Amino acid sequence: MTLAGWVARRRDHGGVIFVDLRDGSGVVQVVFREEDAHALRNEYCVKVVGEVTRRPEGNENPELPTGEIEVTAAELKVLSEAAPLPLPVDDQVVAGDDVRLKYRYLDLRRGGPARAMRLRSRANQLARTVLHEREFLEIETPTLTRSTPEGARDFLVPVRLQPGSWYALPQSPQLFKQLLMVGGMERYYQIARCYRDEDFRADRQPEFTQLDIEMSFVTEDDVIDLGEAIVAKLWSELADHEIPRSIPRITWHDAMARYGSDKPDLRYGVELTELTDYLRGTQFRVFAGAIDAGGYVGAVVMPGGASQSRKELDGWQDWAKARGARGLAYVVLDAETGEARGPVAKNLSAEHLAGLADAVGAKPGDAIFFAASGETREAQELLGAARIEIARRAGLIDESAWAFCWVVDAPMFEKTDDGGWTAVHHPFTSPNSEWVDRFEEAPDRALAYAYDIVCNGNEIGGGSIRIHRRDVQQRVFDLLGITPEEAQDKFGFLLEAFSYGPPPHGGIAFGWDRVCMLLAGADSIREVIAFPKTRGGFDPLTGAPTPITAQQRTEAGIDAKPKPQQPPTHQGTAGPAAPVADPT
Amino acid sequence: MTLAGWVARRRDHGGVIFVDLRDGSGVVQVVFREEDAHALRNEYCVKVVGEVTRRPEGNENPELPTGEIEVTAAELKVLSEAAPLPLPVDDQVVAGDDVRLKYRYLDLRRGGPARAMRLRSRANQLARTVLHEREFLEIETPTLTRSTPEGARDFLVPVRLQPGSWYALPQSPQLFKQLLMVGGMERYYQIARCYRDEDFRADRQPEFTQLDIEMSFVTEDDVIDLGEAIVAKLWSELADHEIPRSIPRITWHDAMARYGSDKPDLRYGVELTELTDYLRGTQFRVFAGAIDAGGYVGAVVMPGGASQSRKELDGWQDWAKARGARGLAYVVLDAETGEARGPVAKNLSAEHLAGLADAVGAKPGDAIFFAASGETREAQELLGAARIEIARRAGLIDESAWAFCWVVDAPMFEKTDDGGWTAVHHPFTSPNSEWVDRFEEAPDRALAYAYDIVCNGNEIGGGSIRIHRRDVQQRVFDLLGITPEEAQDKFGFLLEAFSYGPPPHGGIAFGWDRVCMLLAGADSIREVIAFPKTRGGFDPLTGAPTPITAQQRTEAGIDAKPKPQQPPTHQGTAGPAAPVADPT
Repeated sequence: MTLAGWVARRRDHGGVIFVDLRDGSGVVQVVFREEDAHALRNEYCVKVVGEVTRRPEGNENPELPTGEIEVTAAELKVLSEAAPLPLPVDDQVVAGDDVRLKYRYLDLRRGGPARAMRLRSRANQLARTVLHEREFLEIETPTLTRSTPEGARDFLVPVRLQPGSWYALPQSPQLFKQLLMVGGMERYYQIARCYRDEDFRADRQPEFTQLDIEMSFVTEDDVIDLGEAIVAKLWSELADHEIPRSIPRITWHDAMARYGSDKPDLRYGVELTELTDYLRGTQFRVFAGAIDAGGYVGAVVMPGGASQSRKELDGWQDWAKARGARGLAYVVLDAETGEARGPVAKNLSAEHLAGLADAVGAKPGDAIFFAASGETREAQELLGAARIEIARRAGLIDESAWAFCWVVDAPMFEKTDDGGWTAVHHPFTSPNSEWVDRFEEAPDRALAYAYDIVCNGNEIGGGSIRIHRRDVQQRVFDLLGITPEEAQDKFGFLLEAFSYGPPPHGGIAFGWDRVCMLLAGADSIREVIAFPKTRGGFDPLTGAPTPITAQQRTEAGIDAKPKPQQPPTHQGTAGPAAPVADPT
Repeated sequence: MTLAGWVARRRDHGGVIFVDLRDGSGVVQVVFREEDAHALRNEYCVKVVGEVTRRPEGNENPELPTGEIEVTAAELKVLSEAAPLPLPVDDQVVAGDDVRLKYRYLDLRRGGPARAMRLRSRANQLARTVLHEREFLEIETPTLTRSTPEGARDFLVPVRLQPGSWYALPQSPQLFKQLLMVGGMERYYQIARCYRDEDFRADRQPEFTQLDIEMSFVTEDDVIDLGEAIVAKLWSELADHEIPRSIPRITWHDAMARYGSDKPDLRYGVELTELTDYLRGTQFRVFAGAIDAGGYVGAVVMPGGASQSRKELDGWQDWAKARGARGLAYVVLDAETGEARGPVAKNLSAEHLAGLADAVGAKPGDAIFFAASGETREAQELLGAARIEIARRAGLIDESAWAFCWVVDAPMFEKTDDGGWTAVHHPFTSPNSEWVDRFEEAPDRALAYAYDIVCNGNEIGGGSIRIHRRDVQQRVFDLLGITPEEAQDKFGFLLEAFSYGPPPHGGIAFGWDRVCMLLAGADSIREVIAFPKTRGGFDPLTGAPTPITAQQRTEAGIDAKPKPQQPPTHQGTAGPAAPVADPT
């Protein structure tokens, strides 16, 4: 047989040389009795002709799928040599991130990164299988499109042929997929490249990928069913996990109340308890202030938390301050007596203290953390973050578990600083049937047909049913204070499209990098991206981005003044098809 | 049953209203006996509950798949209304290009455009099926990458976080797919978006799509086999045409000699004949000049061309001048006597005239067109263009035929104006085995492992085997006059990668818009693009591109001076995974 691959390891045993030869399918041991194998070094690319034989008894390697056989080489051809390696191509040794990215082509020869690439390719195919069974069309939408000075910043592209004008790279195919629904395409999907010019928190990338879906004539349940079919297929095939169906749904308000998060990690309990009513009348200034302001007091229990040292308990204060809170009030319950101690205990009445453990579901030996604020959401989010930290510190997270949920009934609107309203999602998100005719009565309580799917505390997808009725859209714009002129300027072409018989429609988009990251068991999306960039958007491999030449600058029309008019429409005249240039 | 869709046509028959209702699956006739259907207008979006019944005898419509039945409506709900249409949604009426693009969402409701979208989606799936059966991995490569000031112009993107630095949008994934081969991925594909900032000839688009493929440890035959498997599958399933295998191969030099083109249309004959030897010694100045200059004289025959009027024959001169030639010499053979007449006839000797018809394969009644030049290729290309025009004017093209070929053995190098050499493909293209050790001896005759696939005269794909040996690469750079410093500057990261055991590899890329255009029987790639742009890169629907605001300009760092240094590498530090924002 003929093998081709890379020298993963070479061992000289006086006269006999053993080489672990690696290719895309794995590793096999090759035995050389010839001198020429002496010249082999790690990562040489070689071709070997030889015979497969069973390994001598006792020499099997149970850690290799091919560990019972070996190949006895008859011919060796060095296809190319390798310079001394800047990065060990070794599954046991992990180099620094910068070196890994600069030499990503060597990093990809390692087992883990190679498996991540294979997994992602397979994930794409599985999702497509689900979608094609349901007669979805894969349609590409433009990536040189119109800048919408809304939300996150756009990446911009100067247009040489229309100097002074710029394309924007799309933050998502949102507008185009809605136009496709107006166009009667009915079921669309795309594994779409998207762009967002953000400050790079954590492992955000300037370009990212989403599995983007839109459907006509559907309800929220239809979209959710489809989303479940996709994740069920992925986790079944790629993580050997059957997701119990249906995936539980929790309302946005319940998620905030019970978990202090709109993407709750359900691998563990540690639920929040609201104490606003229980503590009403307390003399403790911090709690009373929040209650009097119409806000919220709540608590979360750390099982066994009473055994924490003073230093550990102080550490929680630092943790809370790092999150921007003033601190984290707490009480510890004596492991023997159940007696409440700690700074907050002194401030609560005997009666409030007596019923506290029952009220929050704590046992002797536990710690109880409190949060209070005039803004309910602020206090809930602090407790939600504490909940995650408790689970981590108390070892409550089953790392092998998968917990999914849908967070539904999200709010339509949020108050802005100037007392107006802003859309929590985008202004085309539909109020639900309960609110569609009266969301103006209580915008803060109005709910949307908007849904997110959450896996182990990560939001992996989200979407909504869109407004297709002009009267509803107008009322939403009115509430948001968007004038007809502004609406025309910002969304004119979509609104115009909606005047020609738009179907009811809705959709979902999965954060595909994140989905693949979870399936791969990786802790960064960079592990499932072939050529990721660093946090600053820098590519250590190619050195991008770079300065451009003066000639490029001039040619691209970067400094040209835009013409006052739209480009003339006669540019639209089509010509006959021209031949393609050699695309490679 | 419940139907939802659009009103394609409404006919009032006094008391009974017939509506053709259209959805993604087709059209069905709905019968209303209720008053409320009077309000329906074309392109209203409606929901109908009703019963399927067989149409009364004599009322069947054989042109509709659903023409034997109709739906008797019991309930009607108008989901949304349509304003008066700017564009007839009618398969029989085609609006102007500008209107079609501005209201593309209405255009897509027409039968032809909707079918084109479905066909393209299906083409993607079929190609993927072929590739996955062969264990190819689908891998995404970056689209925010490094500018390579070579070949066509790059689209540029300013980088806010590194002011003064720019990304470029890739003209193809070429460099990244070769890096993936170095990374041991072995078999890669991607349906990749590419960008080329060209002057828009005919229906070029600033962004286009290619099916991009690369393989390790392969020969030219392996890549060609794979390419054939893909086109065979596509044409079998989508054009109901079984491509005879193997697809014929013709060398680049033969294609030029016989068809005057490197993408010959083989649906008809009309081959070129070289007459350089035959006419040697002629007194005719034009031919003698070309022959003496070491060039070429040749001819192509127009069957029946002697019956053309003087005006038609003069028209050929205008045609040739429009192509930049001085004219098109010709001879016509009398239909009765076979006698040669016309301006050239007077200039040729009796002996040359006597054998001419036999030399070029002409019969009485035919016309013979000549081209002569000191530059062989120039004359061949003129005859090649004349050949196409002859086939068109003489009605020799079978529009229902499919003719495929591979054009192989392309030249490695071309002379530059300053007497040096340039690479015909890219400088990583491998010389073939006959030339790899001696291409310096005769660069003009050296051949590459480069191949194009041609369908009906359209190049639909092309690729090459790449150089993986450092010594060969160095010799190619030497011949091209690329110094080590220049090579480092331009391709440094790829050359560095090639020092770590690169495998032999090669690939192909299909111009996917063009492939789908041919399969759809369309005459422009715009017909198979959901939201195409006009020739000037303008999108009449969204109005892109647009001016940007001063704030966008400042924020994007468009006018910042680049820092002299590369960005600090500490930006590479990875953080923990951050949650995704609502991707929709």
